[in-house]
Amino acid sequence: MSEFFSKKYASLEPYTPGEQPRDMQYIKLNTNESPFPPSEKASRYAYEEAKKLNLYSDPESKVLTEKMAAYYGLEANQVLMTNGSDEILNFAFMAFCDDEHPAAFANITYGFYPVFAEIDKVPYVEIPLNEDFTINVDDYIGINKTIFIANPNAPTSIALPISEIRRIIESNPNNIVVIDEAYVDFGAESCVPLVNEYKNLLVTQTFSKSRSLAGGRLGMGFACKELIQDLNTIKYSTNPYNVNRMTGAAGIGALEDDEYTKANIKTIMENRAWTMEELKKLGFTMPDSMTNFIFAKHEKIDGGEIYQKLREKGILVRHFTKPLICQYNRITVGTKEQMEALINALREITEVSL
Amino acid sequence: MSEFFSKKYASLEPYTPGEQPRDMQYIKLNTNESPFPPSEKASRYAYEEAKKLNLYSDPESKVLTEKMAAYYGLEANQVLMTNGSDEILNFAFMAFCDDEHPAAFANITYGFYPVFAEIDKVPYVEIPLNEDFTINVDDYIGINKTIFIANPNAPTSIALPISEIRRIIESNPNNIVVIDEAYVDFGAESCVPLVNEYKNLLVTQTFSKSRSLAGGRLGMGFACKELIQDLNTIKYSTNPYNVNRMTGAAGIGALEDDEYTKANIKTIMENRAWTMEELKKLGFTMPDSMTNFIFAKHEKIDGGEIYQKLREKGILVRHFTKPLICQYNRITVGTKEQMEALINALREITEVSL
Repeated sequence: MSEFFSKKYASLEPYTPGEQPRDMQYIKLNTNESPFPPSEKASRYAYEEAKKLNLYSDPESKVLTEKMAAYYGLEANQVLMTNGSDEILNFAFMAFCDDEHPAAFANITYGFYPVFAEIDKVPYVEIPLNEDFTINVDDYIGINKTIFIANPNAPTSIALPISEIRRIIESNPNNIVVIDEAYVDFGAESCVPLVNEYKNLLVTQTFSKSRSLAGGRLGMGFACKELIQDLNTIKYSTNPYNVNRMTGAAGIGALEDDEYTKANIKTIMENRAWTMEELKKLGFTMPDSMTNFIFAKHEKIDGGEIYQKLREKGILVRHFTKPLICQYNRITVGTKEQMEALINALREITEVSL
Repeated sequence: MSEFFSKKYASLEPYTPGEQPRDMQYIKLNTNESPFPPSEKASRYAYEEAKKLNLYSDPESKVLTEKMAAYYGLEANQVLMTNGSDEILNFAFMAFCDDEHPAAFANITYGFYPVFAEIDKVPYVEIPLNEDFTINVDDYIGINKTIFIANPNAPTSIALPISEIRRIIESNPNNIVVIDEAYVDFGAESCVPLVNEYKNLLVTQTFSKSRSLAGGRLGMGFACKELIQDLNTIKYSTNPYNVNRMTGAAGIGALEDDEYTKANIKTIMENRAWTMEELKKLGFTMPDSMTNFIFAKHEKIDGGEIYQKLREKGILVRHFTKPLICQYNRITVGTKEQMEALINALREITEVSL
């Protein structure tokens, strides 16, 4: 830290992205990327725009926004496209949290929430999950706070049913409830249709996972038009051209090729089921996953040791050092071949260690 | 504004991007874009990455950063690549401004500075330009503030010599001086080499203008490694994957095709000289431009009227309503054909109006 760095951020602890080592070629199961390339249409549309980059992108992302709205049967003014879903989450911390509206989220959830709260100077409380990593919905009833819930939650992979989310929204009518649906496409139920019912609901999603655009940075929010307008005020005060030409075009291509997305989701869900069965045979336990990753711990072998030994065998998974979850690894569901390699490696590790 | 929008931003006035009308095809001279497409290499590299968007981009933008550093003979740890130069300017307001270090910038300059100050809750002072729109350097000597200077300045097109910038940097050793060089490639002298001399200097640049990547969103900052580390702390607390795969690749392609960039700059400067001469013949006055735009007013015809009449003729320029500059229009320098169309239209307008 230089002598010039503002003291207001002296204690800021930045987010740590999943490691991207360059020492060798790994099977990357550590950042919840899709193992499938983007739709060929997405790449081709992006290339067409890559030839016109001398011109600014449309700050309104009009074509993409309308297409996204139509996908869910919403009006365009109920949708905001952003630079990844991180951007709209940050916008929500800025727009809807302050001293009178502290943020509230689980103690085990997406690691960026406390970072956004810190950098946006927003007070926040972390609400402990139950011992089995489920959310205790009663902890969120009538708490008068701006609530962020990743649904399904990360890194636990567990989803809340919509009926429970309704209870949370309805009991906090003076605060915004943000439902972060980064992983919703892999088996959970989306709250997007509820934005027509509740004026205090913001749902965020991303093209990074099911639509294979992690490297393009495209996310979005759904809400009533008044909230979208608030979020636009933040956008136009920080990043008016937030969706660049190529990314916007890739998003349009991905939306037009929805069959491809659905086929990939189906494959991931099949590979997930197979992998969970195999992991159980090897002595792992895990919550039932509604995501493209599995949150697993071994009954006898230390989580850090499993992470390290997989790494030595060329397989990267995500290990967290937070005490409550340090026995777990978050394993992205990849192709069948990748999952077979994972299971073979874990078989060797468990045989040697036990 | 919804009832949920935080009161802390109640008075926020967002930045207004240049208009992007869709009612007809205009000759767009209103957003300082390059009239030339990006390097074919930039587009091609971007396309290669568009096929791999399922994988996150490198948060460090290592290859691009090293190439950019080498371009200026710096170390990679003296460079930070960002999502447009707006992002690094915002990072600088966050990292280096607070109640003890208020921001200071000209009253007529890039319109985003006060917006960043407002959204980042940073106190700021606006320092009046001289009547001829030049900066009075003495106003910046030893003022104990974090100083932002667009050099050349926008929308005035006027550049300060480096010797004057040195005086400002040296007289404010306890504060950061940010030199925003968005337009430096069109004839002004860059301060980038000075980052090896001054630990309180941050220089920002963009690929949007001379390198034809406005629609890709790529900017950067140059400073001593301690300041770059501070800015990285902000980056990893807001937008770790800030340069997407395609944009990073396009940046590499543009840097590798520097001959193309230089040829385009030369053409723009020639067209600028021609256009300024023609404008003078029509009764316009303007400062000597060191940018890819001309800041011109007519001796007899109202600036708003000129803007409106050009618009009716299918030519867009940027008109500002701020009283001090409302007689001026900011005209982007385009191709020779575009400039001829502009001059022909202005000839008709001045003949009818006078």
